Amino acid sequence: MARMASTSSDLVRLRLEVGYDGTDFHGWASQPRLRTVQATLESALATVLRLPGVALTVAGRTDAGVHARGQVCHVDVPAGALREVTAERLPRRLARILPDDVRVRGVSVAPDGFDARFSATWRRYAYRVCDDPTGPDPILRRSVLAWPRRLDAGAMDAAAAGLLGEHDFAAFCKARAGATTVRTLQECRWRRAGDLLEARVVADAFCHSMVRSLVGCLLVVGEGRQPVSWPAAVLARRERHPRVPVVAARGLTLEEVGYPPDDEVAERARVARAVRTLT
Amino acid sequence: MARMASTSSDLVRLRLEVGYDGTDFHGWASQPRLRTVQATLESALATVLRLPGVALTVAGRTDAGVHARGQVCHVDVPAGALREVTAERLPRRLARILPDDVRVRGVSVAPDGFDARFSATWRRYAYRVCDDPTGPDPILRRSVLAWPRRLDAGAMDAAAAGLLGEHDFAAFCKARAGATTVRTLQECRWRRAGDLLEARVVADAFCHSMVRSLVGCLLVVGEGRQPVSWPAAVLARRERHPRVPVVAARGLTLEEVGYPPDDEVAERARVARAVRTLT
Repeated sequence: MARMASTSSDLVRLRLEVGYDGTDFHGWASQPRLRTVQATLESALATVLRLPGVALTVAGRTDAGVHARGQVCHVDVPAGALREVTAERLPRRLARILPDDVRVRGVSVAPDGFDARFSATWRRYAYRVCDDPTGPDPILRRSVLAWPRRLDAGAMDAAAAGLLGEHDFAAFCKARAGATTVRTLQECRWRRAGDLLEARVVADAFCHSMVRSLVGCLLVVGEGRQPVSWPAAVLARRERHPRVPVVAARGLTLEEVGYPPDDEVAERARVARAVRTLT
Repeated sequence: MARMASTSSDLVRLRLEVGYDGTDFHGWASQPRLRTVQATLESALATVLRLPGVALTVAGRTDAGVHARGQVCHVDVPAGALREVTAERLPRRLARILPDDVRVRGVSVAPDGFDARFSATWRRYAYRVCDDPTGPDPILRRSVLAWPRRLDAGAMDAAAAGLLGEHDFAAFCKARAGATTVRTLQECRWRRAGDLLEARVVADAFCHSMVRSLVGCLLVVGEGRQPVSWPAAVLARRERHPRVPVVAARGLTLEEVGYPPDDEVAERARVARAVRTLT
């Protein structure tokens, strides 16, 4: 479709990088009368861009209490709205009006066909647990789970290795009609630094509550209540297991979202959208 | 003085290691009607030990908003109070009733002559600053100062080297009648990790507001508003300088307190008490 020139009503898609302390938010997604990251950001963007409203699409819809460092979202805005405030200036303008528990780290014009959710090729989460029986460092306590008993990080790491690869993760997911629970777990490692244990969990995408269920399952092994082989056995059952707890949101942080090169984001979005809704 | 046996009214001195997020405290020292670390800890100790009250002596009296990881304090309690709850069990018992922004990491019976304040041979503080113009990582924001302009960590580190050694730090202290402002600055280094700059500051002891004044002075250099030689020139004047700001408490954490071997703590306390009050 030939165009002579862009007009101020043409839409420009912006890609935003976002970080937040989830403690005082009721999660990402907007809900009536609740403080959410999405509503807080949409309101700030509308104010700075002088628009009646904007709608964000996010890479990872985090639950209440979950944190983010490298969350990514996109928003379509009329080109005219960016005349006064360019994409490059948006982070500083937003920083002035956003509360300090949410920050927009960077804004850029998205490549053609980019979709924050469906173009993503991987998400990386961290889950942090402190097994000092007197509780975590108070300075870190808002992003660390307090665990009252000692954990065996080596056993948890070994058990996690048995979950890697493409599987039906139904055992660790809240089922949702019409959506597949097949995911590719690319990395799941535990390391200890003093009393702080950290899981690094990477997958193409995650079902709802999947990281917190995986971590819950591995903590059972870390306590010595189940053998290292147990998480793989739970996975193979493909249905939720009554002895797999979903651990608290507090310890979970979305650290980073990965995308393919700019000229592949459109195709990736097309494929991911089809796979995740039709399988 | 010969004693047949200890009685339950004999006093036992306990050494406590404490950490806290200073954000919601009005500093360490008890003040009427304000939430302080000292009053919170004294109340919890009195409850657990079933005493009408206890009095803590601390290594570093931190101001409102200042944090601690390795704070040390001592308390004298009747031997009888430790019959039911031994020193080893105290941290877990305290953990159950303390708010989660203060933790007692460890409790031990102090060596003879130990004084948390006067036996200490050094204190180590960290000061953390983020110079990303959009502000610090929300998850870390309670313990990091937001600085809106870029800082030259190399210049700050070089300037800090000019302050090392034994000097009269009156230029960086709030004067107090009858107290010396001579201190030995053993270490003062800056290093950068991404947008986060961290100062590591070690001295035998610090005067009131000394770390925050030193950091304020070095930030002026980091911004390029004064040369690397300026902090040493300020120090040499031995009086407060109007262009040295006292930076916010938020970025400051008391990380560790050092003591000599057990058989030297009494002598160290005697010397330090004399030097710091009579010079």
